[in-house]
Amino acid sequence: MKAILKSSPEKGLTFTTNAPEPQVVSQSDVKIRVMATAICGTDIDIYKSDPDLTHRMRPAMPVVTGHEFCGEVVAVGGDVVRCKAGDFVSAEMHILCGECVNCRTGNGHACIDTIIKGIDADGCFAEYVVVPASNVVKLPEDLPVEVAAFLDAIGNAVHTLTPVSVVAKRVAILGAGPIGIMGAKIAKLSGAREVLITDVNQGLLDIAAKHGADQTFNVGTEQGRQAFIDTCKNDPAARGVDTVLELSGHPSAYKDLFQCVRMGGEVVLLGLPREPLTVNFTRDIIFKGLTIHGIIGRRTYDTWFRMLGLIQAGLLDTLKAMVTHQFPLEDFQKGFDIKLKGEGLKVIFKPGE
Amino acid sequence: MKAILKSSPEKGLTFTTNAPEPQVVSQSDVKIRVMATAICGTDIDIYKSDPDLTHRMRPAMPVVTGHEFCGEVVAVGGDVVRCKAGDFVSAEMHILCGECVNCRTGNGHACIDTIIKGIDADGCFAEYVVVPASNVVKLPEDLPVEVAAFLDAIGNAVHTLTPVSVVAKRVAILGAGPIGIMGAKIAKLSGAREVLITDVNQGLLDIAAKHGADQTFNVGTEQGRQAFIDTCKNDPAARGVDTVLELSGHPSAYKDLFQCVRMGGEVVLLGLPREPLTVNFTRDIIFKGLTIHGIIGRRTYDTWFRMLGLIQAGLLDTLKAMVTHQFPLEDFQKGFDIKLKGEGLKVIFKPGE
Amino acid sequence: MKAILKSSPEKGLTFTTNAPEPQVVSQSDVKIRVMATAICGTDIDIYKSDPDLTHRMRPAMPVVTGHEFCGEVVAVGGDVVRCKAGDFVSAEMHILCGECVNCRTGNGHACIDTIIKGIDADGCFAEYVVVPASNVVKLPEDLPVEVAAFLDAIGNAVHTLTPVSVVAKRVAILGAGPIGIMGAKIAKLSGAREVLITDVNQGLLDIAAKHGADQTFNVGTEQGRQAFIDTCKNDPAARGVDTVLELSGHPSAYKDLFQCVRMGGEVVLLGLPREPLTVNFTRDIIFKGLTIHGIIGRRTYDTWFRMLGLIQAGLLDTLKAMVTHQFPLEDFQKGFDIKLKGEGLKVIFKPGE
Amino acid sequence: MKAILKSSPEKGLTFTTNAPEPQVVSQSDVKIRVMATAICGTDIDIYKSDPDLTHRMRPAMPVVTGHEFCGEVVAVGGDVVRCKAGDFVSAEMHILCGECVNCRTGNGHACIDTIIKGIDADGCFAEYVVVPASNVVKLPEDLPVEVAAFLDAIGNAVHTLTPVSVVAKRVAILGAGPIGIMGAKIAKLSGAREVLITDVNQGLLDIAAKHGADQTFNVGTEQGRQAFIDTCKNDPAARGVDTVLELSGHPSAYKDLFQCVRMGGEVVLLGLPREPLTVNFTRDIIFKGLTIHGIIGRRTYDTWFRMLGLIQAGLLDTLKAMVTHQFPLEDFQKGFDIKLKGEGLKVIFKPGE
Repeated sequence: MKAILKSSPEKGLTFTTNAPEPQVVSQSDVKIRVMATAICGTDIDIYKSDPDLTHRMRPAMPVVTGHEFCGEVVAVGGDVVRCKAGDFVSAEMHILCGECVNCRTGNGHACIDTIIKGIDADGCFAEYVVVPASNVVKLPEDLPVEVAAFLDAIGNAVHTLTPVSVVAKRVAILGAGPIGIMGAKIAKLSGAREVLITDVNQGLLDIAAKHGADQTFNVGTEQGRQAFIDTCKNDPAARGVDTVLELSGHPSAYKDLFQCVRMGGEVVLLGLPREPLTVNFTRDIIFKGLTIHGIIGRRTYDTWFRMLGLIQAGLLDTLKAMVTHQFPLEDFQKGFDIKLKGEGLKVIFKPGE
Repeated sequence: MKAILKSSPEKGLTFTTNAPEPQVVSQSDVKIRVMATAICGTDIDIYKSDPDLTHRMRPAMPVVTGHEFCGEVVAVGGDVVRCKAGDFVSAEMHILCGECVNCRTGNGHACIDTIIKGIDADGCFAEYVVVPASNVVKLPEDLPVEVAAFLDAIGNAVHTLTPVSVVAKRVAILGAGPIGIMGAKIAKLSGAREVLITDVNQGLLDIAAKHGADQTFNVGTEQGRQAFIDTCKNDPAARGVDTVLELSGHPSAYKDLFQCVRMGGEVVLLGLPREPLTVNFTRDIIFKGLTIHGIIGRRTYDTWFRMLGLIQAGLLDTLKAMVTHQFPLEDFQKGFDIKLKGEGLKVIFKPGE
Repeated sequence: MKAILKSSPEKGLTFTTNAPEPQVVSQSDVKIRVMATAICGTDIDIYKSDPDLTHRMRPAMPVVTGHEFCGEVVAVGGDVVRCKAGDFVSAEMHILCGECVNCRTGNGHACIDTIIKGIDADGCFAEYVVVPASNVVKLPEDLPVEVAAFLDAIGNAVHTLTPVSVVAKRVAILGAGPIGIMGAKIAKLSGAREVLITDVNQGLLDIAAKHGADQTFNVGTEQGRQAFIDTCKNDPAARGVDTVLELSGHPSAYKDLFQCVRMGGEVVLLGLPREPLTVNFTRDIIFKGLTIHGIIGRRTYDTWFRMLGLIQAGLLDTLKAMVTHQFPLEDFQKGFDIKLKGEGLKVIFKPGE
Repeated sequence: MKAILKSSPEKGLTFTTNAPEPQVVSQSDVKIRVMATAICGTDIDIYKSDPDLTHRMRPAMPVVTGHEFCGEVVAVGGDVVRCKAGDFVSAEMHILCGECVNCRTGNGHACIDTIIKGIDADGCFAEYVVVPASNVVKLPEDLPVEVAAFLDAIGNAVHTLTPVSVVAKRVAILGAGPIGIMGAKIAKLSGAREVLITDVNQGLLDIAAKHGADQTFNVGTEQGRQAFIDTCKNDPAARGVDTVLELSGHPSAYKDLFQCVRMGGEVVLLGLPREPLTVNFTRDIIFKGLTIHGIIGRRTYDTWFRMLGLIQAGLLDTLKAMVTHQFPLEDFQKGFDIKLKGEGLKVIFKPGE
């Protein structure tokens, strides 16, 4: 079948037309024909051969990459009752151990032995993918496939907003990539009274302004940063925002976040800093009485219920606006080139075209 | 009256016998005769003239130091009904603004404009202290004055255990000073199935072992550190402890804490690192799905109810064991010398003796 | 001054022009000129001489009734710094004891010794009212006085939605009076994916449909009731709604609520049944694994922050639509007649007109 | 094999020696040799042919009864990796649908389609039982089989204490049967400052007094009831206990609970009233600002981790004290006779003897 592979520690990915088609092996397997799949930030890191990822992937190489997708069930194992051929589905690509304290208590997103398809095992940049039945999520028939293609990323945004209640709160979002823009809209849909968002890319900020952000700040200049901090502090009863979502992973955003959040505020971290960062824990976390939430993956499967519910509650238009590029799978390089240049929002591949 | 003053940015403190006796001025003031008061870590920093503290205290100098105490009410303002002369009391020495979002929503410990008596204004290393009536906490008559002298510190330990539920959990405590030892006992009283504690001082670890710690680890050696990490990881369903309380402020403890905690675990920070620390947020917080709580002060006044309740639930013997030294106020230097040498647990002054 | 009094256990209220004008007595008092005030359901019960209320009010009779209002500060006691003459304000009319465990831990709405102005002491159906400074809430200058007149009731609706998170949830609201309609809008603003509302008054349901309710059900007929239950159950993964808000106090609504809520769902009770009700605790609460929240008053003062935040987040148009009638204070009987007939939503009095 | 059956709607149970031995059928089945099993209150209701239960069991009759047990794995299906022959285990006997919103979000205890083994399908009053692998819980080798026999009931007690934090709280427990006594001990182990317990059986109260209850009240007399209420109310800052656990299901206990709990307190319901009860929702739940938790089953599998952790934290001696009678399976009638007379605590059957 057609697939995009990581075959060696070298930079880049390769397209093939004769990857082995995965099959239903276990009684609980589900085979899905991939209708649409999307590039995630991690895929970019895989393309660039980030050493940690390359090291992790090496035992499985060549690996079919990709972990965001939707498709149609084409075959199921003998024990599978929760979906059937013809169903329109997506799937959680974190394969959980099922045995650790997190898996056994409803916190499988923090499983101690997660296997991620598209990294540790074959993923979905391909015509077909096989997943355990428990990981399958049935989708409404009328959900556009281009949107269903990146529910995994939508789930990251939704999960980021999950540990905090933002009803009537001021929320600052650091980073206006797709997750930041979706996060802005989710925050507004969830009752935030004001959403402030920062980035260094004015185009992204302009899109965010159309999708929930009440104020945007280009923090590429010191003046912009100062305007952001000043705005955050201009609530005299709080002198800072109630909640900060850090989605950029950028060191300077970490400086901003500890300045912009109020005493007793909440911080949610999803963006991945490339390097260790130096933080004044005493002044900025302990004396501030902050609560900080590190976010990994999607809650299994609370996040999936929640994202489908939020789509019904008004998130869909924002999701559609995230889709900036679509290609057949063989043109994967065009899609990656766009993301490597820092352009576009969600780039979709359609393996069937 | 007798008092211990910080009179200048120079190192050390001075004893005086003619500090002005504070008086009931506002209708809501309460004047208390100090029966016993205790040295806190912050007092040591004030003694050493930590630059941040000295800078903060300068406008108020000379300042009566000290902020942990108990005593007897001797006079109250005209509007005060919640206590009266003769009552045995302690008091919260964080004076809150009453106006910010935290004060107005039951989170005054994170008040944006706190004044701390003993730092920003006159404290309790003296014969008398005056506080707002709302800050007064009435005490059971049979609570030993030596224990009542450091409820402020007990409250720090209690507050540290407040944002987490430790029922049936494994808890690691980093730092076996008085707050660590009290924390170990509180964790056990609150249902922890196992409490592990670390320090570099074997004497402190031995005391902790008598007061709730199930296992102690001298992390002064690499072997000791490794034994600690290995023990934390030896639960195959979690590969780490559920909850870590960081009470040392030591950089190496921060390394331990991110190794010893399990995926999806909880971290509570109370110890104050002297310098900014470098942390791998991606690997150690985000990918681990941690929740981190910075702890400041005591919840007003939930923590005070909670500590009196825990004393009734079995904490008292541990508290009594914390009292290692007692002096009249004029011998304050002896008390500070002990703490400066890193000896003793709680050092009590009795201004009336 | 002008005021509406409950002077005797007899039915009805009386208008007077020579009620004694309340004055600033304590150093912490604030005197407010009432600009607008609104009829609450409790005022109707007072009018009707509900025996419990009459019994409670008797010691204070004649009592100035009314407890929802906004106005302008005209005088403040010597200790008051948090507001000043000229400020546009409302006030929490539950006067808390300040001493109980609830008051001292941020849960003053459940104070064990609350005095309610307008019941236990003089209220705001008058030209002036005096309240403790701590109870005053400053308002944005541009908030319409007709809306500010019933923040107390808005706060009931906001408080009802506070113990539950409705993000992506299905919510059923039983009772489409003003609090039900506001609750529908607040639920939608807070991320609910679907809001269902019931009443026996089609006119109210039609208004609710314009303010957040996705589906309305006239449960005056058995057919309507069944349609409601069926719709609640038509989610195959839940067979019931996630959250129910009971705002009617009607016995038949209690039947509906235990049928419409899903296993493991949440129930919030604000409506006041007039009589004890018979409930199958085993089948309907225990085996269903429900959580039930009784709601009293407004959280002090979290609810006030929250309602001002929600107004900023989009609640204002709904609030304006609640104002159906306005009268000068002397025409109070017209206002009460409307409510006694079950007509109108919020009836406003303007004592200055 | 030997088994105790419910074969008809008639009262009583029957012992057989030739029940069909259950076999591993699905790849995920686990077959367990029952080492010890215990009578639960539901088994008594089955014995008495409670109409609801009889109606529910009819389609499956004859049904092997019983749902609390421990044993040794003797065979596993081909996909099972989480346990193996020889393992000492217990199992959750609620078989969950795996598909509903509760199952998919870590709240399977409230599954909308639960099958209970011992009611809807064959249970464990037998030599062998087969369960899905996911329901198996491995046990420490040194846990006494007599205690491991009733982990299901221990889990009910643990679950009851789960939605509330009792650290430093006053807790009232209504009903001093096995779950009440275990609840008292768990409350104390979890930090309660005072545990009050009521019953009409003085013998049970005496046992409770040895296992965590600070005060016991025989509410068989009006004087005893009044003493209980008075004691609950004698905290002047609360005028009631913080938390009430209702474990009796008795109508008069429901009267007590609404009197003994403080404003803003928490109520947990596990005991099963036989009839609908009449409650003053307005006065007793809404105006009191209560939160009420209905408890069903055990959290899957948080409760199982928690009970093993609490055993390690000090619960074991209390559990051992619950075992008052042991019989071989053929003497089941003796065991039931004891419970039918209201005597004994946990009655254990050992099918292998």
